[in-house]
Amino acid sequence: MIISMRPHATKEEIEHVCERIREFGYKVHSIQGDERVVIGVVGVGDVTACLESLEAAPGVESAVRISAPYKFVSREFKQEHSAVRVNGVEIGAGEFMVIAGPCSVESERQIMETAEGVAAAGARLLRGGAFKPRTSPYDFQGLELEGLKLLRKAKEATGLAIVTEIMSDRDVDLVAEYADCMQVGARNMQNFALLKTLGTCDRPVLLKRGMSSTIKELLMSAEYIVAHGNPNVILCERGIRTFETATRNTCDIAAIPVLNELTHLPVILDPSHATGRRSLVPAVARAGVAIGADGLILEVHPCPEKAISDGAQSLTLEGFRNLMRDLRPYVELWKELRGAAMAAVG
Amino acid sequence: MIISMRPHATKEEIEHVCERIREFGYKVHSIQGDERVVIGVVGVGDVTACLESLEAAPGVESAVRISAPYKFVSREFKQEHSAVRVNGVEIGAGEFMVIAGPCSVESERQIMETAEGVAAAGARLLRGGAFKPRTSPYDFQGLELEGLKLLRKAKEATGLAIVTEIMSDRDVDLVAEYADCMQVGARNMQNFALLKTLGTCDRPVLLKRGMSSTIKELLMSAEYIVAHGNPNVILCERGIRTFETATRNTCDIAAIPVLNELTHLPVILDPSHATGRRSLVPAVARAGVAIGADGLILEVHPCPEKAISDGAQSLTLEGFRNLMRDLRPYVELWKELRGAAMAAVG
Amino acid sequence: MIISMRPHATKEEIEHVCERIREFGYKVHSIQGDERVVIGVVGVGDVTACLESLEAAPGVESAVRISAPYKFVSREFKQEHSAVRVNGVEIGAGEFMVIAGPCSVESERQIMETAEGVAAAGARLLRGGAFKPRTSPYDFQGLELEGLKLLRKAKEATGLAIVTEIMSDRDVDLVAEYADCMQVGARNMQNFALLKTLGTCDRPVLLKRGMSSTIKELLMSAEYIVAHGNPNVILCERGIRTFETATRNTCDIAAIPVLNELTHLPVILDPSHATGRRSLVPAVARAGVAIGADGLILEVHPCPEKAISDGAQSLTLEGFRNLMRDLRPYVELWKELRGAAMAAVG
Amino acid sequence: MIISMRPHATKEEIEHVCERIREFGYKVHSIQGDERVVIGVVGVGDVTACLESLEAAPGVESAVRISAPYKFVSREFKQEHSAVRVNGVEIGAGEFMVIAGPCSVESERQIMETAEGVAAAGARLLRGGAFKPRTSPYDFQGLELEGLKLLRKAKEATGLAIVTEIMSDRDVDLVAEYADCMQVGARNMQNFALLKTLGTCDRPVLLKRGMSSTIKELLMSAEYIVAHGNPNVILCERGIRTFETATRNTCDIAAIPVLNELTHLPVILDPSHATGRRSLVPAVARAGVAIGADGLILEVHPCPEKAISDGAQSLTLEGFRNLMRDLRPYVELWKELRGAAMAAVG
Repeated sequence: MIISMRPHATKEEIEHVCERIREFGYKVHSIQGDERVVIGVVGVGDVTACLESLEAAPGVESAVRISAPYKFVSREFKQEHSAVRVNGVEIGAGEFMVIAGPCSVESERQIMETAEGVAAAGARLLRGGAFKPRTSPYDFQGLELEGLKLLRKAKEATGLAIVTEIMSDRDVDLVAEYADCMQVGARNMQNFALLKTLGTCDRPVLLKRGMSSTIKELLMSAEYIVAHGNPNVILCERGIRTFETATRNTCDIAAIPVLNELTHLPVILDPSHATGRRSLVPAVARAGVAIGADGLILEVHPCPEKAISDGAQSLTLEGFRNLMRDLRPYVELWKELRGAAMAAVG
Repeated sequence: MIISMRPHATKEEIEHVCERIREFGYKVHSIQGDERVVIGVVGVGDVTACLESLEAAPGVESAVRISAPYKFVSREFKQEHSAVRVNGVEIGAGEFMVIAGPCSVESERQIMETAEGVAAAGARLLRGGAFKPRTSPYDFQGLELEGLKLLRKAKEATGLAIVTEIMSDRDVDLVAEYADCMQVGARNMQNFALLKTLGTCDRPVLLKRGMSSTIKELLMSAEYIVAHGNPNVILCERGIRTFETATRNTCDIAAIPVLNELTHLPVILDPSHATGRRSLVPAVARAGVAIGADGLILEVHPCPEKAISDGAQSLTLEGFRNLMRDLRPYVELWKELRGAAMAAVG
Repeated sequence: MIISMRPHATKEEIEHVCERIREFGYKVHSIQGDERVVIGVVGVGDVTACLESLEAAPGVESAVRISAPYKFVSREFKQEHSAVRVNGVEIGAGEFMVIAGPCSVESERQIMETAEGVAAAGARLLRGGAFKPRTSPYDFQGLELEGLKLLRKAKEATGLAIVTEIMSDRDVDLVAEYADCMQVGARNMQNFALLKTLGTCDRPVLLKRGMSSTIKELLMSAEYIVAHGNPNVILCERGIRTFETATRNTCDIAAIPVLNELTHLPVILDPSHATGRRSLVPAVARAGVAIGADGLILEVHPCPEKAISDGAQSLTLEGFRNLMRDLRPYVELWKELRGAAMAAVG
Repeated sequence: MIISMRPHATKEEIEHVCERIREFGYKVHSIQGDERVVIGVVGVGDVTACLESLEAAPGVESAVRISAPYKFVSREFKQEHSAVRVNGVEIGAGEFMVIAGPCSVESERQIMETAEGVAAAGARLLRGGAFKPRTSPYDFQGLELEGLKLLRKAKEATGLAIVTEIMSDRDVDLVAEYADCMQVGARNMQNFALLKTLGTCDRPVLLKRGMSSTIKELLMSAEYIVAHGNPNVILCERGIRTFETATRNTCDIAAIPVLNELTHLPVILDPSHATGRRSLVPAVARAGVAIGADGLILEVHPCPEKAISDGAQSLTLEGFRNLMRDLRPYVELWKELRGAAMAAVG
């Protein structure tokens, strides 16, 4: 930590801050600048508590943390890129992975047709919501248990691993019975009760970045799950909220290499939510492969204009097939890059 | 709804859209502009489903909802300003209400001293967190049940009504046993499982605006609670996330008159979270009274620099007393305005 | 400055950074933490150049400036609040000042009627654009010289001081001939060529905050004007751009007390641009008085629905009269506060 | 235009709005919905003036423009992608173009070494600032004329076309004498005086997106230049300002395909400013090629840690060579895509 005192802080204020720091078990290194005193805090202790306390002390201008507030998810904790296994499929290893499917599970016919279509085109995991977070209480809230059962059926027919959303810590056991991977949506990224419960669950977790969450907050939410016992977390960039309205969200694509510097966890991209418009999905998907994401999650629907939700951003089955075909040469380049990176670390 | 077709949409595309609209039970009014066709949709039906479907149809440029997506919380549903009763205290009626207390309940001594101090200075409700949403899993997570019991003790000693945070639908019954008002924090504003459960609970709810939620989304979240059976919702502006870092959040003070136009629900302001700095709280609190909020929620701690959380934005007891004294003439003006407004509605 | 090295920075990297710092004429205080080395930089020199250089050096994680980057505009440079005199009227002194008028000067009749109306209601300065920054090249660009002449006429008739916008350094001499105060619009807040020229001009400057400028950037732009020779700068908060679309901009009202802590320059509020809607202006204006702004700038038009620009946010003359009447008791409280503050410093 | 009346608008208010619309020369199509009346406005006229007028009329809830507010830059005006010729090099045609060079021209040695290095590695245009927009008046403001002369020298030695920034309409003639392409920086994107003057200049313009400008505003600023006579505009995405601080700006990569849908003008990406960190530039550059930008603009410096500005985001000459080598296979894929697109239109 670095504490900057105000320019005219008194001797007593400075001494008081130093004492408080020592009470927390730290050592003090004070630097007399031309305008103000800056105090370096060294040692091991409760950083947050110390910071919050010092920020409130008289004469203090700012108190800034230098070390990263997360541990298990950091690159410093584990240097090699992690792979997370989802029902036999590995995300974060040597293969580029695609998760595809509808926003919501709507009917047996819809989910079976989609599952077969995306499997044939090369997806290895099926997405589909049974519990749906909807802005309005009057909108379709998902088929719930019925939806989970349909997902299982689709899995049995195609072998695709199932990724589905969990919205409450109360439903963790139920959803875990059907899902191979528990998805935490953007709106629940800081639902800490849910994160803690998922930390005790034996299913991998796909953690989507909150609409207005910083990269650091995303990592802290991942740390919640890992610190509570579950190391299998996949991160997902899905666009953030900004002033721009030409797209549904603003795809923060640089978050992917930033995350790759800060954490060993795998990171995937969601071009569907990041843009909100079907016509933009292929271009953003290419960018995602080129920038080095570990995979993509894409919304696909047999008939988008009959979709109950997110039709505008869903690819048709044909659109998905074309995209998978067009991505192939980019995925080849991705494999070379990945191979070189793995050789470098290994 | 208004559907704008693309400039070169074909006759077939336009006809197809009109058919889809009729399938949803609506009537079609199509306008031939110079560049494009615009279609007005009139009638009663499932607006969201229809919109999402049409957005995905070929030839459609945009599909926009005209009517408000919320009903029970709207000014059109109920013209008079609502008052919500919290253990005998009315928020939204003829008196300006102040909720005060520490960020977290930390100890019996801390909460009792604060409760007595804020009651003496004129607060009518006590805030204090027993369950704490913290960005880091390594930070203090609250005293939980122990904290709730201390709040009850403080209530017995002072008569203050208790406002405390609820973080999971699993804890609703437990918290409701101790709280007079259930606070939903910014990070849970779209925790729909929690909102639904609170809709079936007999305690009033203090719903804080999400860090990056629009005013419309705040109203939709309130609609969740009301539509599920609980009409007693108090809204709270607490600052939004923007690019500016001089304050912890950006206080969107104009949200208060905007909400007063759109909804009959009471609206309070949280100057502590909106600014994050103690020195700014009095000025923003004055602005909150002057703009016509129904009340304030303020963080107060007997010794902010020993606070476990939010010390930098907590007032001391003396600071709170001074603020309450300085607000008095503004509250007098507030009463005149409120009286005139109540007389006008009649 | 504080330089944080990466956790695994080598001895050579650290030594190299220390050498670079010394080359810039600074002294080095290095602190060995548990995870990394942090280097304090003390002394006088070219801070920005040193910072930018160090950020690019190998092994450096971050380089952060501690001292404020502005000097003349800071509270540390001058403790008492400054008053800026505009043609005999003082902004920032013991009286609350209101600038009012139309967005654009449209015709003699319009500007004369407005000027007389706002003067009668208590405004002391007249606003009105002769050069208009418009998003579209096809929109009305202002009456230019003709508009300036009409403003002079209005001044002669009413005695109001004239505030009008300057858009190019090429027009500074021309506008200064007619204006008592040169307004720099939000889009030009970082038009440094213009700021420099205004620094050599003998007219006071009303500097509006850029739509997405930080408070620090606003102060740096003011510093440009002052450092080039013109100390008479008035700052104006006019709302910032955020994700919220319910208002035209988001009124960052807390910027006013933040600025009052950081600078001695007067600060006014523009409720018209901050909200974009006439119905919200009175409430936000009240908040502006209560929070301690030095004045308000308001759009007023004799017939808003015939205004060429900004009609939706313009008050009618009657609306302005009512607002001035309703603000009176708040202005009385403002005077007490101001008097107490002036006594405290003086 | 579509005008939505408030739910309880009176007959008189509706009739008044219809009259106003007819006064502007438009036809009226009114639709009676269940809750409100919606009015479609058809015909040719002054859309902005009509919109602003109607927004201010009593009983109106909102007035929304349907048609695009720009004309010459739109895809509807010209279907084929435009190529802009800069001293013999074509941006927007069949080759992927790279502009590279230092943030500022600092010395003869620096600019010559950089120019030779980037030319050898495959850049076709040289960037370098002689007039520098700096947040602080105390920072290096550029070598001005001296810098322009050094750029000319570098051009003579290498044949690279020169791209350099113009900050004031007063300097347009001077800069045009030395520059092959006039760069408008983010802070000047809405400096309309400058845009108008560039419209009368015979040099192509590189227009960077403002830090918080929407895509629509970027297109409107381009329209200014084109409408004033200069059709040769290249657009540049360089990151926008958001709440995220892990990168200097947030790279809005999806803006590229959005722009490709809306305009025929070429679009390039600036990974240096979009990220602010050298280590992120290669990944974002790959994404830029893959998503279909027409080129890249990159900051390169022979010794970034001695750079006067932007050292942290500048590549070394070696870094630039490596990047150009690594981009090669992506550029090959880009050419295939481009070829297919040109064949499809042509």
